[in-house]
Amino acid sequence: MRTTIKDIARYTGFSVTTISMVLNNKASAISENTKKIIFEAAETLNYRPNQMAVGLVKKQSKTLGLVISDVSNSFFALMAKGIEDECHKHGWNMILCNTNNYHDREIAYIQTLIDKSVDGIILCMARENTLPKVLEVIEIMRKNHLPFVMLDRFSPQVECSAVTVNHAAGGYLAGKYLLEMGHRKIGCITGPCDLADSNDRTEGVKKALKEFSVPEDSVCFYEGNYDMDGGEQGAEYLLKKGVTAIFAYNDLMAYGVYRYAGKIGKSIPHELSVVGYDDINFSEIITPPLTTVRQPVCDMGIVAVRQLIHDIQHEDNEPVKNKFEPELILRESVQRVAVQ
Amino acid sequence: MRTTIKDIARYTGFSVTTISMVLNNKASAISENTKKIIFEAAETLNYRPNQMAVGLVKKQSKTLGLVISDVSNSFFALMAKGIEDECHKHGWNMILCNTNNYHDREIAYIQTLIDKSVDGIILCMARENTLPKVLEVIEIMRKNHLPFVMLDRFSPQVECSAVTVNHAAGGYLAGKYLLEMGHRKIGCITGPCDLADSNDRTEGVKKALKEFSVPEDSVCFYEGNYDMDGGEQGAEYLLKKGVTAIFAYNDLMAYGVYRYAGKIGKSIPHELSVVGYDDINFSEIITPPLTTVRQPVCDMGIVAVRQLIHDIQHEDNEPVKNKFEPELILRESVQRVAVQ
Repeated sequence: MRTTIKDIARYTGFSVTTISMVLNNKASAISENTKKIIFEAAETLNYRPNQMAVGLVKKQSKTLGLVISDVSNSFFALMAKGIEDECHKHGWNMILCNTNNYHDREIAYIQTLIDKSVDGIILCMARENTLPKVLEVIEIMRKNHLPFVMLDRFSPQVECSAVTVNHAAGGYLAGKYLLEMGHRKIGCITGPCDLADSNDRTEGVKKALKEFSVPEDSVCFYEGNYDMDGGEQGAEYLLKKGVTAIFAYNDLMAYGVYRYAGKIGKSIPHELSVVGYDDINFSEIITPPLTTVRQPVCDMGIVAVRQLIHDIQHEDNEPVKNKFEPELILRESVQRVAVQ
Repeated sequence: MRTTIKDIARYTGFSVTTISMVLNNKASAISENTKKIIFEAAETLNYRPNQMAVGLVKKQSKTLGLVISDVSNSFFALMAKGIEDECHKHGWNMILCNTNNYHDREIAYIQTLIDKSVDGIILCMARENTLPKVLEVIEIMRKNHLPFVMLDRFSPQVECSAVTVNHAAGGYLAGKYLLEMGHRKIGCITGPCDLADSNDRTEGVKKALKEFSVPEDSVCFYEGNYDMDGGEQGAEYLLKKGVTAIFAYNDLMAYGVYRYAGKIGKSIPHELSVVGYDDINFSEIITPPLTTVRQPVCDMGIVAVRQLIHDIQHEDNEPVKNKFEPELILRESVQRVAVQ
């Protein structure tokens, strides 16, 4: 068991009250000699103040909760890294929670984090969340007066601090680039159709089509799930439709397209062009290296921590929306074709 | 601010003592009607017991610390996922700490985790740790009577519970397979030479050489760093030595070999065979899919959690070593060559 003030009392013969006053520097009336004996005993017995007790008094745990879907997904792993590094800089710690995209598990985690007195939560909503479910989650945090920042996935209906990416701009960048490269039969493998981040990308693609005066029905859509398997199924579906290029709404699904192309012996980029979204670490080393829309995931995590700490320290301030702009990273997975 | 028992007292007019007894089910002498009023008030005011306070009384936080080098490395991300999922099953939480392989940061984290009263630590040692540094870390945990389990990296000099992989068997599997496929000029890109896990792989390779009566100097070694760049540099060095196959001591370095081969236009497996180690998620989708020695990372994490919880609940039990056997996963990065 760890050393407590009681152990020091037993060891020195002084009372618990005296020792507590000395160790908390509230002992102006106590002799220097007594203080010396107590400090030395604390060191000999390897006494460290219990931060649970300190936290109870200060009503602060210097711990935050990170609720994401799955840290084994590289996108979230990079995000968690950025967040934890930034926490460490500020002397905070982070409890990691993987919802596996289940709403029930998300609710259970948030309840536990509240019970464990975290000072705030960074929340990356579970994928299966519909608006009523999102509002349920938010309501729990609000009722408990717990500061939180929504990261990546965000509902415009919720008034809170958030860190997001301009996905409409990201979709536009990808669409415009494929059109510039001559592609007129484009397939999109989207995310789940009830997610705003997926619909925003689609909106961006449509804006690019309009600029190039290409009719909207030149693009085929396949509803994916942000997993590799969804990318593979999407590729199978879209290739039957005769597309020359596929825009996958995340890199994992783009890898699924690569896998399917490999299976049927279709060469990327010579027979099929591919653009991804995220720029996770393997997109650079996959063959051919993947052209993709980069989200500054690590920086987003850093800003989320700073925003949360700010919100914790300034209880009544206005929510702040931090929006990042994505960037198109040109590599070798897209080939120019003759405009048909 | 969160609701406290005092708020319920103010709201209902009953004393703090009465309310505390009712909410903790220690109120046999109190009337059902009073109980009902108090329970309803607790619900109305959204009262939840403060687990920091409960933890102080029970001397248990149901929180453990995971100290790893870097969660953005897929190997550790998978491990963290396995650990967190298993924690969740047991109703525990996990504070994630990335040391970035710095010993000083590792020490600082362990001190913080102790101050925050975690019940135990799963420790994946920082890469730069020499034996005296390892012993320093261990000493801090011992002095604070904090149960811990060493995961993956392990010092045989330390008497503690551990979860490891039989890396000598892993090195043997890789070496034997390359020899069976006819390779007689083999290059190994090792980990840092002071790490037991790297030296064990080398020992396994040498055992295979002996079985095939191939002299030890047929193998060239390059000391890598378990990062992709190290793999790239290793490939450059070893190809100059005329090797026909490279065994990279982790998959990340194998990807570095792929990247270098791509740069100089050398085809894998036709002009160079490659075997990796770990089997992280991208080894299956890289082109060509990587033949590699699989570590059951996720299962290792699960066993580490179970061992730690067991050790926490049984203070005086003997340390247990859990050793996993690795497995060779055959894919397409190795080609048979004529024995020279």
